[in-house]
Amino acid sequence: MHFAHAREMSARFLYSCRWMAQLNSRGGSEQALIARILAAFGTRGERTSRLEVGPGDDAAVLRASPGCVVLTCDPFVEGVHFLPAVHPPDSIGFKALARATSDLAAMGARPRCFLLSLALPTERTSKWLDVMLKGMARASRRLKLALAGGDTTHGDSVAINITVMGEMRPGRSVTRSGAQPGDLLYVSGVLGAAQLGLELVRRGKTGARWSTLLRRHLYPEPRLALGQWLAQRKLASAMIDLSDGLSTDLHNLCHASSLGARVWRERIPGVTIPVALRKLRLDAERMALHGGDDYELLFTVPRRYAHRIPARFRGVRLTRIGEIAKPKSIALIDVAGRAASLEPRGWDPFRNE
Amino acid sequence: MHFAHAREMSARFLYSCRWMAQLNSRGGSEQALIARILAAFGTRGERTSRLEVGPGDDAAVLRASPGCVVLTCDPFVEGVHFLPAVHPPDSIGFKALARATSDLAAMGARPRCFLLSLALPTERTSKWLDVMLKGMARASRRLKLALAGGDTTHGDSVAINITVMGEMRPGRSVTRSGAQPGDLLYVSGVLGAAQLGLELVRRGKTGARWSTLLRRHLYPEPRLALGQWLAQRKLASAMIDLSDGLSTDLHNLCHASSLGARVWRERIPGVTIPVALRKLRLDAERMALHGGDDYELLFTVPRRYAHRIPARFRGVRLTRIGEIAKPKSIALIDVAGRAASLEPRGWDPFRNE
Repeated sequence: MHFAHAREMSARFLYSCRWMAQLNSRGGSEQALIARILAAFGTRGERTSRLEVGPGDDAAVLRASPGCVVLTCDPFVEGVHFLPAVHPPDSIGFKALARATSDLAAMGARPRCFLLSLALPTERTSKWLDVMLKGMARASRRLKLALAGGDTTHGDSVAINITVMGEMRPGRSVTRSGAQPGDLLYVSGVLGAAQLGLELVRRGKTGARWSTLLRRHLYPEPRLALGQWLAQRKLASAMIDLSDGLSTDLHNLCHASSLGARVWRERIPGVTIPVALRKLRLDAERMALHGGDDYELLFTVPRRYAHRIPARFRGVRLTRIGEIAKPKSIALIDVAGRAASLEPRGWDPFRNE
Repeated sequence: MHFAHAREMSARFLYSCRWMAQLNSRGGSEQALIARILAAFGTRGERTSRLEVGPGDDAAVLRASPGCVVLTCDPFVEGVHFLPAVHPPDSIGFKALARATSDLAAMGARPRCFLLSLALPTERTSKWLDVMLKGMARASRRLKLALAGGDTTHGDSVAINITVMGEMRPGRSVTRSGAQPGDLLYVSGVLGAAQLGLELVRRGKTGARWSTLLRRHLYPEPRLALGQWLAQRKLASAMIDLSDGLSTDLHNLCHASSLGARVWRERIPGVTIPVALRKLRLDAERMALHGGDDYELLFTVPRRYAHRIPARFRGVRLTRIGEIAKPKSIALIDVAGRAASLEPRGWDPFRNE
């Protein structure tokens, strides 16, 4: 079983899945749907990812590299994580894969392949599906993830479940629980940018004029290179990706490490609200502290390694925002030295509406 | 990061998931739910499965064995694959994991760990969830699968997505596409037994009196040992598990191998309908040919190895039911030598109702 074989087999992707049979029984074209999935993902990923058996058989088979396998799964569900009426289908496909892959970035792993589990109502099986798959395929190329397999089933609403597999050297994974008192706390990128994009989407501001501001909400970029760099050099003692917002994810990291933190309020790299949006009265600090979906990395670094952390890593800003401390609370400290408690108030875009 | 650590971390299973936060915001007890999940699965699996990082972090990290990683995912969805009103919750948990693992059996892989992705409506988060998890935990012990991670989200109905990871030696996986003309066709176990169980469930016959007949429908047993034995000894040229029924899955195997088959009608090991159920007028042959969910193995064996296939493997019957042939059709041949075409008419229990 080699690549030529995997390529040949991929023409039968998802061949036996029940929903295909159901489409058939409704007079839909199974072959046409298979062709669409293949056209979306192509076969380049299969060739480069050492798949012994690719999509189309009972399971995918891959050559393991010496070391560790890293596994994570992530649901992306209509009405919970996205709304088909407002989110472009290609962004739904892109983001479903990108956010799952962000968990690999947070461990310091290299992405390898993914499985796509898809529940779809009938009205989402035509054009919408094509565009969604196109966005997911774009993410798969950018993240160097081969489609290894998947399944589909009928559902009353769209539910995308992604499983991502990565690899890394043994003993190099960076967990949430390794922080030590005195470690310095860093964050990548700009915080609140995804939340700003969501605020625009909510207000119907989705035209080309807003595309730069929408990008972090619609097409997030997991910080894979940064995570791998920190893990391979053992620079980070603990790490987590920011999916639920700084306040909640910092709380998670501190809880896992049985410690607390002091955060310097003015150091937080919050998103800049453009002048044209001032009238919306958005609270940039609140978005930076509690906005979700940024998929930046939050990590701790022992003080003796601080000089090795650059101000930018491949163009992405790295900011020292605080330090780990023994008291289990999280203190937000302003320029005057006054401390306030930072409670976990990160939220899901659709949870509190 | 070693086992002690993984055990300690497991106390924070699913810590950061959004639905937990949602439960919190509704005044539910996150800690209590975590405790229930842990109590259901325990930590023995983590200790024995070389998990560097277990549930509770951004991703699971496992030591890879030299060789191949085998990955499969399988949805188990309310209203499509089960009905909470008629199926006992522990059988739903058991079957969700068992049917996903059957895909590993069909490749000849050893199970290693699984991820559990769970969408739940609020009314399924109390007692029902406990009993469902108990059934899944029982399957995980029987199948030697450690819970490596997972996530949950809110949903309007129950959707269980299982990803199973296994391992095997390179070059030993048995695909659907390896059959050659003249290979002999075998099936394990008894066919139609799961369908018979479903017919009983449909008629409300779920009491203790029927438990033996219900077992194959409610608590299927993937043929892992058989699959591994066939793969390790390279006895099978092609293999598939019977999830959609013999007629459909044989069609899938033949299609993948670009061949056809001749099946000897009287050799098919169909389920025996007990005298007490004769009045239901169930068609045993139809159930054996087209009934789904048996999770037996259908495999092809080169003639020169036929003498090495026993009549029983660890108590499970192995029956030679036909042979692979060049014409791409599938012929069902009766005792008089008359041939009829066997069309793929396997079905999903809930698809055609």
